[in-house]
Amino acid sequence: MTHLRHLPLGYGGEFDIISAALERWGSLASGIGDDCAVLDVPAGERLVLSVDTAVEGVHFRRSWLSPEELGYRATVAALSDLAAMAATPTGVAIAMTLPEAWRVDFLRICDGIGEAVRTAGAQIIGGDLSRGVELSLTLTVVGHVRTPLSRHGARPCDALWVTGRLGGPSLAVRAWERGEVPTPAARERFVRPAARIAAARWLADHGATAGLDISDGLISDAGHLAAAGSVQLVVNLDKVPTVAGVTVEEAAQGGEEYELLVAAPAALDARAFEAACGLPLTCVGAVAPTIPGEPTVETLRHGVRVTLPRGHDHFPDR
Amino acid sequence: MTHLRHLPLGYGGEFDIISAALERWGSLASGIGDDCAVLDVPAGERLVLSVDTAVEGVHFRRSWLSPEELGYRATVAALSDLAAMAATPTGVAIAMTLPEAWRVDFLRICDGIGEAVRTAGAQIIGGDLSRGVELSLTLTVVGHVRTPLSRHGARPCDALWVTGRLGGPSLAVRAWERGEVPTPAARERFVRPAARIAAARWLADHGATAGLDISDGLISDAGHLAAAGSVQLVVNLDKVPTVAGVTVEEAAQGGEEYELLVAAPAALDARAFEAACGLPLTCVGAVAPTIPGEPTVETLRHGVRVTLPRGHDHFPDR
Repeated sequence: MTHLRHLPLGYGGEFDIISAALERWGSLASGIGDDCAVLDVPAGERLVLSVDTAVEGVHFRRSWLSPEELGYRATVAALSDLAAMAATPTGVAIAMTLPEAWRVDFLRICDGIGEAVRTAGAQIIGGDLSRGVELSLTLTVVGHVRTPLSRHGARPCDALWVTGRLGGPSLAVRAWERGEVPTPAARERFVRPAARIAAARWLADHGATAGLDISDGLISDAGHLAAAGSVQLVVNLDKVPTVAGVTVEEAAQGGEEYELLVAAPAALDARAFEAACGLPLTCVGAVAPTIPGEPTVETLRHGVRVTLPRGHDHFPDR
Repeated sequence: MTHLRHLPLGYGGEFDIISAALERWGSLASGIGDDCAVLDVPAGERLVLSVDTAVEGVHFRRSWLSPEELGYRATVAALSDLAAMAATPTGVAIAMTLPEAWRVDFLRICDGIGEAVRTAGAQIIGGDLSRGVELSLTLTVVGHVRTPLSRHGARPCDALWVTGRLGGPSLAVRAWERGEVPTPAARERFVRPAARIAAARWLADHGATAGLDISDGLISDAGHLAAAGSVQLVVNLDKVPTVAGVTVEEAAQGGEEYELLVAAPAALDARAFEAACGLPLTCVGAVAPTIPGEPTVETLRHGVRVTLPRGHDHFPDR
């Protein structure tokens, strides 16, 4: 009945495979072994925490990713939430359900997780390994920040800014779902996303008033920003920065981007951002001047208002 | 492709069922809605964090528990790790994989989670809901404590103390696995465990030097305490406090107890503990005087050294 928690070291097959992972991670997981991780937050900073799950068959298929890419991608997806708050990542706890058929790939998944944690400058602080019939990774990420960049706070007449180029992950998934091979660029965007940690820090330091990471798709996430800030947003689809091979409509709806969408002054120096972060920063719209009414997102294409269908939902209405 | 994270409020079936849970939880989950939870730690205290997963078919079977009991139990199992560190729980984040067949029970599971969080005086701070083929709950719990009670620190000649009475959960599971109905007392111990938060605080305040919660079984967890503290432990099986219907051997090996095992001075006032916490506190052994050698756990029965078989392992050697 019992299950292993917090990666204690000990006896048996379960302990053995965890010991192998700990050996692989080395100093990246050096503090593990008690019932809980103990964390200190720098004076004047606040702790931020997020949880993100990747389930085989729901968030990815085994044929799409190598085990390293799967571990890396799931971890970056979680770290991206810390970036969305402009926080500095410090710790990652890993809850993994490992079916027998995946056991051979366990250490390769751990390598991918380790790479993402190392890249973010964080530590592995704990975990929980279970048996099960489907591979599932739940990453709990913690970090700290003096002033979190939240979803609310967008001000009338702020501009809407997007980092990077959109549409790659959904382009790759559409190719896979048609039984085709995605372009290398699209595949790379799906299997090797980046958590925009430094970019978020730069934007927060340069006046961003609200922001989030684009996980549900630009339009859906703009909706979250509008709702949280009780503002009306206008997104100009003509301006949406795309990877090669996707339409702006597709790019505006594709999820799992892990780029940032922020409200910030229109006078933001995009070139300075690009020089500092090595990424494009594009103005894709604006917060409307205050008008009484519901939070909304208006999408324009060639100057005309258009309606895009909804994004993906795990539990569609039946 | 995208999945819902951090319980944002919005549109669609997935958002609808999350909204229903948030409504049910009310003020218990009032701070939810951004990419991350933001937490403050009282001055002079340290943050502690743990992650715990319960998977259908591995940690429980659907026929054993009501949905409320399942949510309650999974949450208490996670909170028990905070108790093990003598920490005060503050926040719980819920990652749930919800198969279609369980959807009808979603709100009842949420009720059980809510009850456990409320009882612990904590808040629901976020989550992630996914589709999947097996029900899985990963609870991330955070709390704070001035001086964590860790697994290491047991001193030669400390006594070993156990809270409560052991053997109930494994007695219930054995009955279910034989197709029988467990005794009400044994069933209650399985479906309604308690996180020993106040008891741990009392023990830490009264000189406990090391401790953990009994999740893998008394003997296995004594092994963790021995290994972490580099000490040799003696457990006197004759003294193990049991529920009715189990032998001391069974009680010493049964997992998922969520009682506490601590090293503390032999002069500890067990009656004062019982008066304060409403629980028995039993001396079951001692830390041996320092002797060079490997960390070990020696088990005595009727004054004679005995060997008990290993506890449960999710990944037995093949």
